[in-house]
Amino acid sequence: MLVNCVAYQEGRKIADIPKEDISEYLKKPDAFVWVALKDPEPAELDEMKEEFGLHELAVEDARQGHERPKIEEYGDSLFAVVHTVEPKDGELVVGEVNIFVGPNYVLSVRNHSEKGFQSIRARAEREPHLLKHGSGYVFYALVDTIVDRYFPVIDGLETELEEIESGIFHQNTPRSNIKAIYGLKQKLMTMKHVVDPLLEATGRLSGGRVPQVCEGTEAYFRDITDHLQRIHGSLEGLRDMQTTAIQVNLGMINLNETEVTKKLAAWAAIIAIPTLIAGIYGMNFKNMPEYDLSYGYPFALALMVGVDLLLYFWFRKIRWL
Amino acid sequence: MLVNCVAYQEGRKIADIPKEDISEYLKKPDAFVWVALKDPEPAELDEMKEEFGLHELAVEDARQGHERPKIEEYGDSLFAVVHTVEPKDGELVVGEVNIFVGPNYVLSVRNHSEKGFQSIRARAEREPHLLKHGSGYVFYALVDTIVDRYFPVIDGLETELEEIESGIFHQNTPRSNIKAIYGLKQKLMTMKHVVDPLLEATGRLSGGRVPQVCEGTEAYFRDITDHLQRIHGSLEGLRDMQTTAIQVNLGMINLNETEVTKKLAAWAAIIAIPTLIAGIYGMNFKNMPEYDLSYGYPFALALMVGVDLLLYFWFRKIRWL
Amino acid sequence: MLVNCVAYQEGRKIADIPKEDISEYLKKPDAFVWVALKDPEPAELDEMKEEFGLHELAVEDARQGHERPKIEEYGDSLFAVVHTVEPKDGELVVGEVNIFVGPNYVLSVRNHSEKGFQSIRARAEREPHLLKHGSGYVFYALVDTIVDRYFPVIDGLETELEEIESGIFHQNTPRSNIKAIYGLKQKLMTMKHVVDPLLEATGRLSGGRVPQVCEGTEAYFRDITDHLQRIHGSLEGLRDMQTTAIQVNLGMINLNETEVTKKLAAWAAIIAIPTLIAGIYGMNFKNMPEYDLSYGYPFALALMVGVDLLLYFWFRKIRWL
Amino acid sequence: MLVNCVAYQEGRKIADIPKEDISEYLKKPDAFVWVALKDPEPAELDEMKEEFGLHELAVEDARQGHERPKIEEYGDSLFAVVHTVEPKDGELVVGEVNIFVGPNYVLSVRNHSEKGFQSIRARAEREPHLLKHGSGYVFYALVDTIVDRYFPVIDGLETELEEIESGIFHQNTPRSNIKAIYGLKQKLMTMKHVVDPLLEATGRLSGGRVPQVCEGTEAYFRDITDHLQRIHGSLEGLRDMQTTAIQVNLGMINLNETEVTKKLAAWAAIIAIPTLIAGIYGMNFKNMPEYDLSYGYPFALALMVGVDLLLYFWFRKIRWL
Amino acid sequence: MLVNCVAYQEGRKIADIPKEDISEYLKKPDAFVWVALKDPEPAELDEMKEEFGLHELAVEDARQGHERPKIEEYGDSLFAVVHTVEPKDGELVVGEVNIFVGPNYVLSVRNHSEKGFQSIRARAEREPHLLKHGSGYVFYALVDTIVDRYFPVIDGLETELEEIESGIFHQNTPRSNIKAIYGLKQKLMTMKHVVDPLLEATGRLSGGRVPQVCEGTEAYFRDITDHLQRIHGSLEGLRDMQTTAIQVNLGMINLNETEVTKKLAAWAAIIAIPTLIAGIYGMNFKNMPEYDLSYGYPFALALMVGVDLLLYFWFRKIRWL
Repeated sequence: MLVNCVAYQEGRKIADIPKEDISEYLKKPDAFVWVALKDPEPAELDEMKEEFGLHELAVEDARQGHERPKIEEYGDSLFAVVHTVEPKDGELVVGEVNIFVGPNYVLSVRNHSEKGFQSIRARAEREPHLLKHGSGYVFYALVDTIVDRYFPVIDGLETELEEIESGIFHQNTPRSNIKAIYGLKQKLMTMKHVVDPLLEATGRLSGGRVPQVCEGTEAYFRDITDHLQRIHGSLEGLRDMQTTAIQVNLGMINLNETEVTKKLAAWAAIIAIPTLIAGIYGMNFKNMPEYDLSYGYPFALALMVGVDLLLYFWFRKIRWL
Repeated sequence: MLVNCVAYQEGRKIADIPKEDISEYLKKPDAFVWVALKDPEPAELDEMKEEFGLHELAVEDARQGHERPKIEEYGDSLFAVVHTVEPKDGELVVGEVNIFVGPNYVLSVRNHSEKGFQSIRARAEREPHLLKHGSGYVFYALVDTIVDRYFPVIDGLETELEEIESGIFHQNTPRSNIKAIYGLKQKLMTMKHVVDPLLEATGRLSGGRVPQVCEGTEAYFRDITDHLQRIHGSLEGLRDMQTTAIQVNLGMINLNETEVTKKLAAWAAIIAIPTLIAGIYGMNFKNMPEYDLSYGYPFALALMVGVDLLLYFWFRKIRWL
Repeated sequence: MLVNCVAYQEGRKIADIPKEDISEYLKKPDAFVWVALKDPEPAELDEMKEEFGLHELAVEDARQGHERPKIEEYGDSLFAVVHTVEPKDGELVVGEVNIFVGPNYVLSVRNHSEKGFQSIRARAEREPHLLKHGSGYVFYALVDTIVDRYFPVIDGLETELEEIESGIFHQNTPRSNIKAIYGLKQKLMTMKHVVDPLLEATGRLSGGRVPQVCEGTEAYFRDITDHLQRIHGSLEGLRDMQTTAIQVNLGMINLNETEVTKKLAAWAAIIAIPTLIAGIYGMNFKNMPEYDLSYGYPFALALMVGVDLLLYFWFRKIRWL
Repeated sequence: MLVNCVAYQEGRKIADIPKEDISEYLKKPDAFVWVALKDPEPAELDEMKEEFGLHELAVEDARQGHERPKIEEYGDSLFAVVHTVEPKDGELVVGEVNIFVGPNYVLSVRNHSEKGFQSIRARAEREPHLLKHGSGYVFYALVDTIVDRYFPVIDGLETELEEIESGIFHQNTPRSNIKAIYGLKQKLMTMKHVVDPLLEATGRLSGGRVPQVCEGTEAYFRDITDHLQRIHGSLEGLRDMQTTAIQVNLGMINLNETEVTKKLAAWAAIIAIPTLIAGIYGMNFKNMPEYDLSYGYPFALALMVGVDLLLYFWFRKIRWL
Repeated sequence: MLVNCVAYQEGRKIADIPKEDISEYLKKPDAFVWVALKDPEPAELDEMKEEFGLHELAVEDARQGHERPKIEEYGDSLFAVVHTVEPKDGELVVGEVNIFVGPNYVLSVRNHSEKGFQSIRARAEREPHLLKHGSGYVFYALVDTIVDRYFPVIDGLETELEEIESGIFHQNTPRSNIKAIYGLKQKLMTMKHVVDPLLEATGRLSGGRVPQVCEGTEAYFRDITDHLQRIHGSLEGLRDMQTTAIQVNLGMINLNETEVTKKLAAWAAIIAIPTLIAGIYGMNFKNMPEYDLSYGYPFALALMVGVDLLLYFWFRKIRWL
């Protein structure tokens, strides 16, 4: 689905143009074409390939999807795959944005992603001096916006970890902790696959030999790299804490086991001792003087209760109860 | 076993040629010879060595098999070992394809692998312009086809992991989970040994100093490298989740232990208390007034049942039962 | 909040100058301006941006905060983010110092940090020859002071670990050990995020191509790098020991479980045996000669006590009690 | 002990020469001297040092032994330490071969190793064209032979792992599994110390700047490197599986614990219930009508048996028995 | 404390000189001054700084101590920090040797270390040709001596591990094993911090651009690097085995738990069954024919003993007892 297809000149919008005219506008010396697609049909991609003269392999990647994030040079143009992450019903939905960047065009293809990039275009059209930086700057703005949307996701994961910690240390709910830790791990892996390859790719745009279309934007891509490195650091930290949490939870489970066994032992003793006394006074020896005492029975009961009280307080003291 | 032995000129098939004529065709300036062997006899390999003038060490590797994946230069020719993976009865069968690539020939030797590469040859013969790219392109097409066949294997491993997760969290079958996790681990190791060395090898064909026969196909090998990196990432992710799964399963086992102990304790109490009461009323004191009451016996039974009901509901409340 | 705003010439203080005059003093050939802000308003930062001509992205980073430690070049000036760490109520409070360094100015912006850097300025003003080294030396002095403040934090963490070890091996308090280990882990992660990126950044100032403002101070930054590497080593060591501590604690928990089970078993036997004897002498057979013995009852009691004493000493011997 | 001391010319053996003549033969332009020692006395090494003019530090290393595998240049000669591994009584015996390689000599010193290298010499003497490659080729042949002898050791370790797996999943012998896993780990560490440094060392002979005596044999050393990398990969794989095996075995131990507890609980219930019934019918209430029934006793027994059968089948159903 | 202060010329000792004359001797063209301090006062260090013209930062490091091992260039001189390790009462005492090396002097400062380096000086004075190599050789001799003293420490740690293994597999002393493993881990960490940074530092003296004072001693420092790498390998191996040992010990603890539970269950059954029989024959039914048999009582006792013997041998058979 075509979202926008606009030609600009000297940073100002000339016109919404039909798809068929793209290749003509690209020939004009000062024109700059910025096209946005959303979940396109294969036919739409083929059309774009024709109009922009995109490389076979790049279009193939965009068509098939499920690529890992990357930024590749094809001659004097770039092809980037960047993943979007949107939380939905406690899960992370990963979308994919393919960006084709040429000297005088940017084509973004958004897949499985709800949030668009209209705000970038709106700001760029309000501030024409930004668009004058050319396609490299638009490319930066797209990637920067996607990366900025990772931060709330990371914050969400940190909140999840805090809830798990509270479950371990305060609420003692080991079964749901286990599930929550495993769920957190899955999300961390998802984010890792989204962030790490992109970090590697943007790092190459901020230093050393930089592709021509990104010349002059190194500092901007260094900034993105920096943000990604911060996210990467947070993910590593979360991962480390999650590993510790799983061990700590196991420790808690085993501690609970010990405590249950202690309780079992204490109550078993409290029941078994009077049972023994009752057994003794159930013996059938002829010559048991207690049997004839009028206070034999209450004495036996008192003995049972007395021993049990002693046991009870002793077990409280050693914290088995 | 000889599968195919064909000479091409300007991208078009000239003829199926007998093995003995290979060396002659290789001398023709524009000819290109493409030979495919399957599980060959040592003698066949020796013959090929003669006809193509292959390097001693490369032929030795092909003869012995069980090499790790690699791509090596011998003068102006290449020798590649690539592994095939085919799932069979829940196991992964690893085969080996040895590819000898020279300026005007490609020799592929397939071992322990069911699926062949006829589709590549068929497509190449349908579209002669592809074959014109020369032996580098045929080499790429072979490796690409093998790598594409890894994806369904990875999907299968991901499905296995999901079944293990379901076993851990929903079906509570720790014993079979353990076996399944161990089996998954074994397959992950198999895939790792197949993928990682190849990733390293193809990476060297997509940048820096590239062997002569691969000149002009860098972008294609970058694409393969990319696919391998995606597979590598998935394997790393699976491995990480498998490690977590094993710990989570252990946690579940220990939780079950605690719950069994709690049940044991609860039922022990429910049986022990009436046993104690019965013991008390089995004592032989002369002066036990209850013995003479006509409702003494029903009262004792009611006491047993009453205490047990209280215990039962209390244990339900604290979730020991 | 403006803390200091001073112009220097040839290492000597000329005057406290108003913020508006900074840009004028910067134009003077020999002047050096050193400004310190604390938790500034956005407007203050904008003002500084104007006066010093700071780079957009650097100011943006300083405004938003929560950056990871880094040292970046913008033309002939540097922008550094360094974290401060201050223990407070058993937690680590992480603050942030942003330092802008130009050929003839240093601007430090301190956020969420209690301790200031007055001592550095005081010393620099007492010893004018130090200030003559220029902005690179002031930059070094600031970073060095912050890094030196990490050492007592590390010492504190080492003390925490020793307390945990004592808890594991001498006081046997597994529940509080688990919490303490987890808390230690959290602090280690905090320190890691503070130290590791800074180590990477200062390493680049001590060798290879050094930014112009740091020329001549390589040996000083090598010294900082060295201190950071020592801290890094200590953190890695603490982390390794913490991982071992968690496993050791788990082992202790399981050992305790075994010991509780042994005690349970021993006491169960000590109670069950006399109960059995009492049961036997509670049987109703007509022909039980013991019943008629006058010492039958004491004999039975003696038997119970005797068997229990034997059991008790035997369990002591095998260390189940 | 001197094993062999032979002078060759143009690939053909001239004579077995006495040790004292080595230095003279070395002066002849086309001569090549190949000496093999076994567990030599210090004096023998000193003699060799004189005859061949070996470097102080290299001879020192050979004398002391217990070096890690390495290949070092001393001027235009090489000194290599390679470890041999020979299984003996279920243990791995590590020997050491020191190889001194000069432009026209090879001296191998074998320590604590049973298998020699006579077959290499025999083959070299049968095929004089091989010896013409010079000392580099002899060096390759020695290292290659040693490395090839690692493969059966690795196969043995893989068999050990399979036996452990069978012990875990089929024979349920956790105690002997633990020992076997630990033993396997020890052997893996031994092999790792043998293989990894050698891999690093041979890698440097197969590319980049190659020592003069190895010129022309790069492809051969690449082949060795390849074999070592395969062994290295297998060791890493074994190590990973061993780590998983230890966790899996722990899981099995804990599962067994749970199952023992379940059995304990089930049988405890099956014994306790009839004990309770017997207790109830042992009460001394006057008014217990069952006592007077002629079928009271058989009814009580039947009740006990009946309840126990119900319990038994129920426990079978929930798989506690 | 001044240990030695000697001036040499052409490898021969001229005189023990007073500290104040050092700077004068340094000016003589062929003189070489070798000074050794032990646990010096700050004033002594200041004096040395003056006499030798040492760098501020290096002296500062030496004064404060607790540096990590390193070798740093300051102009044409070197500053090295090397740690000594001495076992004492089962602990490892880490000392520190600071070595200042200039073109014609060596100053060693030993802290917290019992063993000195008199043997090096003695040997050097006996064999003047060694001293002619200059300060680089003395530096090598000092570091080599320190590193050689690490080997017995490593041997000690290996012995500790063997004792732990014996404790795990033969003596079954899990509590003391845990302590011993933790103690071993602490020592491994200590050694790691001593060895790893030094390995990194000496590696830079054995290849690439070598500081001037070490020219000509590359092969010697390569030898040290080699020894350190061997120690490093041993430490890594010990660490790996220690990690496995901790898991193995945990497995053993859990196995013991299972065995205790089995024993508990078996003895519980052996006591409970006769208790049940006694309970049955304690019932008060009128019509229990056994009561009137003259052999009823012995029969009941025989029944108890018989069932218990069966149980006992059955439990032996299934190895629960």
